Amino acid sequence: MSSDAVLDAKTLRDALRKMRGWELGDDGRIAKEFRFVDFVEAFGFMSRAALIAEKMDHHPEWANVYNRVDVALFSHDAKGITDKDLQLAARMDELAAS
Amino acid sequence: MSSDAVLDAKTLRDALRKMRGWELGDDGRIAKEFRFVDFVEAFGFMSRAALIAEKMDHHPEWANVYNRVDVALFSHDAKGITDKDLQLAARMDELAAS
Amino acid sequence: MSSDAVLDAKTLRDALRKMRGWELGDDGRIAKEFRFVDFVEAFGFMSRAALIAEKMDHHPEWANVYNRVDVALFSHDAKGITDKDLQLAARMDELAAS
Amino acid sequence: MSSDAVLDAKTLRDALRKMRGWELGDDGRIAKEFRFVDFVEAFGFMSRAALIAEKMDHHPEWANVYNRVDVALFSHDAKGITDKDLQLAARMDELAAS
Repeated sequence: MSSDAVLDAKTLRDALRKMRGWELGDDGRIAKEFRFVDFVEAFGFMSRAALIAEKMDHHPEWANVYNRVDVALFSHDAKGITDKDLQLAARMDELAAS
Repeated sequence: MSSDAVLDAKTLRDALRKMRGWELGDDGRIAKEFRFVDFVEAFGFMSRAALIAEKMDHHPEWANVYNRVDVALFSHDAKGITDKDLQLAARMDELAAS
Repeated sequence: MSSDAVLDAKTLRDALRKMRGWELGDDGRIAKEFRFVDFVEAFGFMSRAALIAEKMDHHPEWANVYNRVDVALFSHDAKGITDKDLQLAARMDELAAS
Repeated sequence: MSSDAVLDAKTLRDALRKMRGWELGDDGRIAKEFRFVDFVEAFGFMSRAALIAEKMDHHPEWANVYNRVDVALFSHDAKGITDKDLQLAARMDELAAS
């Protein structure tokens, strides 16, 4: 299966169950709210995630207010959630944990 | 007048008239949509604006998708738009123009 | 010719002549000193160049003091200057000009 | 004592002894080499340190190659090491540890 194929509902549900804090929204996106101690840590997370996203050529929808970063992921080409979204989500979780 | 005082409606309206693309929303925030050629330029704008915001201790609400950055400014302490918001807005306009 | 092949002396010399401010050092690297108005602009340049470098999987040697960024490029795998170095140099020039 | 006063030799020596990896060089700077797992983490460190440095109005001399960041601190106004250098050094250590 190509990383560009939309994941079927069961595969996606099973994948999200193994992750922490990511939820499938009514808009078809998977979303998570990240919280950090302050703006410096929040923006440090964004700077690292930006490097990864640009390299993957797969960019998040994200919003930031002070110590909070709300991320939503979706594959616009495939019109759904693909393996690329799960990969970027997993990398973001690693960054936030480190 | 302290930079922390809420601007009265006329002062704010006059100030916004001299700026480009900033509008007062129903939620009391001033907001602007910035567009760049790609993600690299959009995030480069955010990186510079983050340095300025952290130094001012005055942080934006902002959202990014690829080449677009939506910014909303508000002074939570003062519960309104203050001179600090106008200063940050003006600096962002400079950054986006450079 | 692969982008990983070391450029011969004449090709490199001709390429550098068309660029602005890049010089071949005794250590075999091509180097340039970038100057900006302040730290914010210098670091904004670095943030954008970092996104490009990570995507190319080709990273600069660079040093920063306040408004100054000294960049040196070299292809360690190929043990010389390759087309990748010229591409990254050209992108950096574009970033600094924008 | 103002944070802009040059620390005397004993005070500086005692302070450095309590820190990890910072050394006083012949050039009068205090310096440390930071190593990270990859470029993303190294640049994430720089992005956060840049926010702190700009806010303090006290900027490092630093160089980066891939996963390595070499930092040197010095107070040019005071022509020596001041409390500001120690503060920035301590914040960098915190960032690198987090």
